[in-house]
Amino acid sequence: MSGPEIENLIKIMSRLPGLGPRSARRAVLQLLRKREALLGPLTEALIAAREVIKTCTTCGNIDVSDPCTICRDPRRNSSLICVVEDVGDLWALERATAINGTYHVLGGTLSALDGVGPEDLNLTSLRERSQQAGEVILAMNATVEGQSTAHYIMDILARPDLTISRLAHGVPVGGELDYLDDGTLEAAVRTRSTLG
Amino acid sequence: MSGPEIENLIKIMSRLPGLGPRSARRAVLQLLRKREALLGPLTEALIAAREVIKTCTTCGNIDVSDPCTICRDPRRNSSLICVVEDVGDLWALERATAINGTYHVLGGTLSALDGVGPEDLNLTSLRERSQQAGEVILAMNATVEGQSTAHYIMDILARPDLTISRLAHGVPVGGELDYLDDGTLEAAVRTRSTLG
Repeated sequence: MSGPEIENLIKIMSRLPGLGPRSARRAVLQLLRKREALLGPLTEALIAAREVIKTCTTCGNIDVSDPCTICRDPRRNSSLICVVEDVGDLWALERATAINGTYHVLGGTLSALDGVGPEDLNLTSLRERSQQAGEVILAMNATVEGQSTAHYIMDILARPDLTISRLAHGVPVGGELDYLDDGTLEAAVRTRSTLG
Repeated sequence: MSGPEIENLIKIMSRLPGLGPRSARRAVLQLLRKREALLGPLTEALIAAREVIKTCTTCGNIDVSDPCTICRDPRRNSSLICVVEDVGDLWALERATAINGTYHVLGGTLSALDGVGPEDLNLTSLRERSQQAGEVILAMNATVEGQSTAHYIMDILARPDLTISRLAHGVPVGGELDYLDDGTLEAAVRTRSTLG
């Protein structure tokens, strides 16, 4: 109904996660309505991001420098490597300031169904980096793919002087028992901690 | 956790309708992951849109030309003006190919609460355009603001040789009676049509 430029913009916007064809149309409409306040700034921000963004060749993080801010930070414990599936998981752990070490982004999980094998993941450099590490935390998602990937990595990294750990399972903070699945509850009871 | 360019991009993205801070972060992450396939094309599309997009000085539509494609189309009945609140409503009616005339975008509704008076809406040019029109359809939203705006416009446009109409109320196509509000049901019964 309007020029091909608008239709093309809607098509690309609808490929963003969380936006379908309808909400992409609504977002584009808002952009076109607020050309000074929204379309301009967004375009500038994307240009700026495109110019400075790099993928860290050490850990796979996305940042404005390579090595990334985390890998270069001397206050971080570089002998602790937290392995995650995706950059989004790294950002989540950073928001929680849960890890005082470095990260390693796999870029996915092993999946026979989707044809993802060990060679498709960022594993060669992880094996090299783990030589200098004292502990590797396998922070995969608690899914079947995540956990089988964690098992695979445990096998290839195993070495007497390397601690390999995984995240605890349990009741989410603020979570209600009634809404939790049996696996989580069972794990939470099994790994309960003593109070005093 | 990452450079100010990324944080700024997330902040701007979260101002789009349908995206909150969390989903904006996820969308930006996807953009940064797929720099070739997504970040690049989106930037280009925004630049292209920014360059060509204009607001039609006749009807208020957003398009790549002024007058817009609809106002310039000689096959359209220019003596029929469909008045809508917003460009989004115009696009919706165009998708439904429901109107073979022209449009007039008000840019909002009268609202004493929000301090929107007649002078804030695109009304002066509507009054002028209506002089040459045979019918004006008031396609406001079926809200209190929309309907009181429609009443106001009806008053200022009233002229013996001008038909002023409004959209029908009734059961949405595919809608279930059980989920409809009383007002809609009452209107659907009152304006029922005879079958044969």
